Amino acid sequence: MPPFKQFVPILDWGRRYNRESLASDGLAAVIVTIMLIPQSLAYAMLAGLPPQVGLYASMLPLVAYALFGTSTTLSVGPVAVVSLMTASAIGQFADAGTAAYIQAAVLLAFMSGGMLLLFGLLRMGFLANFLSHPVIAGFITASGIIIAVSQLRHVLGVQGGGDNLVHLLDSLAGSVETLHIPTLVVGSLTLLFLFWIRSGLKPLLMRLGMNDYWAAMLTRTGPVIAVVATSYAAWALDLGSHGVALVGAVPSGLPSLQLPSIIPGELSQLAVSALLISIIGFVESVSVGHTLAARRRQRINPDQELIGLGAANMASAFSGGYPVTGGFARSIVNFDAGAATPAAGAFTAFGIAIVALFFTPSLAYLPQATLAATIIVAVLSLVDFSILRRTWNYGFSDFTAVAITILVTLGLGVEIGVACGVLVSLALHLYKTSRPHMAVVGEVPGTGHFRNVERHKVITRSDILSLRVDESLYFANANFVESHIYSLLDKQPEVRHVILLCTAVNEIDLSALEALESVNRQLADRGITLHLSEVKGPVMDVLRQTHFLDDLSGKVFLSQHAAVAHVSELEDAGHGPAPHNWEI
Amino acid sequence: MPPFKQFVPILDWGRRYNRESLASDGLAAVIVTIMLIPQSLAYAMLAGLPPQVGLYASMLPLVAYALFGTSTTLSVGPVAVVSLMTASAIGQFADAGTAAYIQAAVLLAFMSGGMLLLFGLLRMGFLANFLSHPVIAGFITASGIIIAVSQLRHVLGVQGGGDNLVHLLDSLAGSVETLHIPTLVVGSLTLLFLFWIRSGLKPLLMRLGMNDYWAAMLTRTGPVIAVVATSYAAWALDLGSHGVALVGAVPSGLPSLQLPSIIPGELSQLAVSALLISIIGFVESVSVGHTLAARRRQRINPDQELIGLGAANMASAFSGGYPVTGGFARSIVNFDAGAATPAAGAFTAFGIAIVALFFTPSLAYLPQATLAATIIVAVLSLVDFSILRRTWNYGFSDFTAVAITILVTLGLGVEIGVACGVLVSLALHLYKTSRPHMAVVGEVPGTGHFRNVERHKVITRSDILSLRVDESLYFANANFVESHIYSLLDKQPEVRHVILLCTAVNEIDLSALEALESVNRQLADRGITLHLSEVKGPVMDVLRQTHFLDDLSGKVFLSQHAAVAHVSELEDAGHGPAPHNWEI
Repeated sequence: MPPFKQFVPILDWGRRYNRESLASDGLAAVIVTIMLIPQSLAYAMLAGLPPQVGLYASMLPLVAYALFGTSTTLSVGPVAVVSLMTASAIGQFADAGTAAYIQAAVLLAFMSGGMLLLFGLLRMGFLANFLSHPVIAGFITASGIIIAVSQLRHVLGVQGGGDNLVHLLDSLAGSVETLHIPTLVVGSLTLLFLFWIRSGLKPLLMRLGMNDYWAAMLTRTGPVIAVVATSYAAWALDLGSHGVALVGAVPSGLPSLQLPSIIPGELSQLAVSALLISIIGFVESVSVGHTLAARRRQRINPDQELIGLGAANMASAFSGGYPVTGGFARSIVNFDAGAATPAAGAFTAFGIAIVALFFTPSLAYLPQATLAATIIVAVLSLVDFSILRRTWNYGFSDFTAVAITILVTLGLGVEIGVACGVLVSLALHLYKTSRPHMAVVGEVPGTGHFRNVERHKVITRSDILSLRVDESLYFANANFVESHIYSLLDKQPEVRHVILLCTAVNEIDLSALEALESVNRQLADRGITLHLSEVKGPVMDVLRQTHFLDDLSGKVFLSQHAAVAHVSELEDAGHGPAPHNWEI
Repeated sequence: MPPFKQFVPILDWGRRYNRESLASDGLAAVIVTIMLIPQSLAYAMLAGLPPQVGLYASMLPLVAYALFGTSTTLSVGPVAVVSLMTASAIGQFADAGTAAYIQAAVLLAFMSGGMLLLFGLLRMGFLANFLSHPVIAGFITASGIIIAVSQLRHVLGVQGGGDNLVHLLDSLAGSVETLHIPTLVVGSLTLLFLFWIRSGLKPLLMRLGMNDYWAAMLTRTGPVIAVVATSYAAWALDLGSHGVALVGAVPSGLPSLQLPSIIPGELSQLAVSALLISIIGFVESVSVGHTLAARRRQRINPDQELIGLGAANMASAFSGGYPVTGGFARSIVNFDAGAATPAAGAFTAFGIAIVALFFTPSLAYLPQATLAATIIVAVLSLVDFSILRRTWNYGFSDFTAVAITILVTLGLGVEIGVACGVLVSLALHLYKTSRPHMAVVGEVPGTGHFRNVERHKVITRSDILSLRVDESLYFANANFVESHIYSLLDKQPEVRHVILLCTAVNEIDLSALEALESVNRQLADRGITLHLSEVKGPVMDVLRQTHFLDDLSGKVFLSQHAAVAHVSELEDAGHGPAPHNWEI
């Protein structure tokens, strides 16, 4: 593909677009639009933004993703975790709902979009791989709890706030006497209804003879029914004048296009948050995209996804929105509804535009408690502590990384939580590689294969130490490996040859080379010869550029078997160390 | 050893102490004391502290190290790099020479001592391994340049300052018109003399028939001669009244023991600096200790060294000193002079105490230019850019880490420099492991060994893909490996069996296991069987705890040869995939 076309996938799939695709995409767009309206309003509220900002973030970004994204089914827009992160980032220096707050949200979308585009152009999609699956799972679970608890105040009708579980619970407990009964009634009825829809409606519909597809689709309209019913109740019973918080007047019309106002001080304050939002948004989006693409035997291109999401966030910033990404729930709906190409997203944007133009007056009576209830039900489905059990059974590092991610996210907030998760999992990995497993090996009789003496019945000789190092040799483990060799020799003083089996040594860096040179010298002082076996091609290439192979007291063998055979023969014949040269 | 004795090595070597050890240690102490006086004064000046603080840091810390350290020859006290780091840390919030500045230096020694003790008790000596040799070499070289340039102003007699090369050169250039000729004369004569001593004196003495040992010892007295000669000149010519900066009145007597005054605000401001000073000091000390111990076929214990250095810094703090560590130059002198046990250090402390009690009046006439010249000559011997050439020839990662360490240290200062060096080298290592080398392998005819098809003449079959992954499988590379397998299959659509050769796979974490499960499922969908071979014991143990082996479409083989033989037989006999079970 020519360089330009590569960055604009629509030029590829657009040429194959036909009436059939149009029908599939159109139907999917109608269904997603209906679902997206309450979601956009709710997540805007979660982010501390006025409801129309949620609608704005659900229009142009979808068109931008349709032009540049590679997933056929990913639905981009406001999502729960990114909305929470937005609130947490901006809340530090502006009050929710003020003009400065909205401006900062737009700037955040702009910065996040810029970073994603930059990473995409630099082909840095691989960065997302440094977030391990367990860390993501733990982070999403902990974020889900924080989000659910943060919305409880709207259901209870009390004041409160906070960035982490401790502050949130504290503030709820402190304001419990201000409980507002009418709000509580609306909120808890909506909650009960939505939980029943989730768990009871689909089985009921299927028992009534509805097929699986339509039962699932109808079940997903739950939030829309709740919105319509509670809005009607609020209008009919005049709940607003009884103190139930309503969404209120939502400005109608399309967003005006504008350049984000860039304030240098805010740029540096928001930089880390924008980076974390970009990474989390990208990872969430790519994992949804991967999962759905695999079901259709398609693939997505992570580097191009960066560009698609970057363009979407830029579009959000230029149209008064806030950071967006590919959401799990709505993408599933889009997928199930049969979206065939990214155009479905653009059609959805059109649907939202219609709502923004003509239906905002009917949103004025919508109780905030209803939106909070839809958020709580949506995010509780993200909460899944089974990752703790699974990692506990699997291994120390994975468990520790997840446990720390969950605890820190709950206790100190989302930004520190995800940063800790990444750092802890990398630190644990580095710690493990800094103390590699090393096995003394011997030959499994008659096979030519060498295995750990502690696990297998193998043949060894007291004058040969065959040692397998199960790790690349680099600065973090070079001293450890060197000391381990000396301590093995202390225990087995009759050794005359040390043979390092290098099957697992994928790299030898300069620090490790210096350690090997030191081992070679110190062994030579004691009259012990150092050999290597099964050195990989790329490692051998590097060693050949140095003096190490010339200075090595022993040889390099193609196999451990050949090494042991050669050395044994020499020793049994009473010869000294092998003459200097090496084979490969 | 009982737990307590393990932490106090003197209980071990002290019982074997005899008259012979006493004679060796005593002689070494006399020589080191003479050398240490100008050094202590000079490094105190480098750290921005009054001269007596350098003397204080050269008494009790040596006794503490003698009680708790494991190196027989390491000489602890003020060193150049740590002095520079001290100045750079404290300079941010106090003016050099003020009482607040001295107090902060004491606090820094206290914090650094506490951290080292803590790391020692937690047995965390391994942390030092994360500083690679090339990064250390680059850091020392860059620090040497900064130190040398920072001392130029004392030789030129101008004002100036700065934490990094840019600021230092800027400030020198800006104050060149204030050049003070008498100071310049003293400074440059001393510099010339010291350079001549280094390069010309030893050969001359040896030509005059002196043996190598005494020639080297006499050469090392150079700074002392310079100190005596320029002090005399300053007194005789009354240089002080001509504007040459002299050391001035140094309070005589021993330091009074005192608790450091702990100011909570300073604690948090100094924490990062104290940590970096601890790590750099520890690494410098351990590498000197290792080098010297190896020459005597001794070993040092890094975890116990942490305790020894921690105790030394605590002792420094309690006696009005500043951070100390094991220095290279003076340890070499100690070693060459024949120090037999850590007691030599305690005797040196006694020597310094004599000087502090009786000889301080004679230090008053010592020109600061002389001290600056001794520092410049000492640190220029640390400057060695050959590490750039060596790493350039060796490999991209090592070179990049060194180059960044040097540039950042010179451009932004020592603390950021060393932190960048560690982070960049770890990041490069992680980047490499996130995109592992993978080789399609085939059998070297008749050997049973499998090698890269691109490097060797090997036998392959079009229906079998034998793939060797040259890295542990973990979250950072799981997606990459998965994608690589699919792209290989796209190129070779007739493959019916994929056999992963796992000799280099030392770990499979949960993220990687999920990726393998996904590969297994996707291959099964396409009618391709997935096998593993040569899985290591520890990895197999982990896999056995999961369902992976039950779900695996193929088998686990003891060797790649067995795997290929088994699969070939099945395919040639026209069978389907192997019945489900696995061997190891």
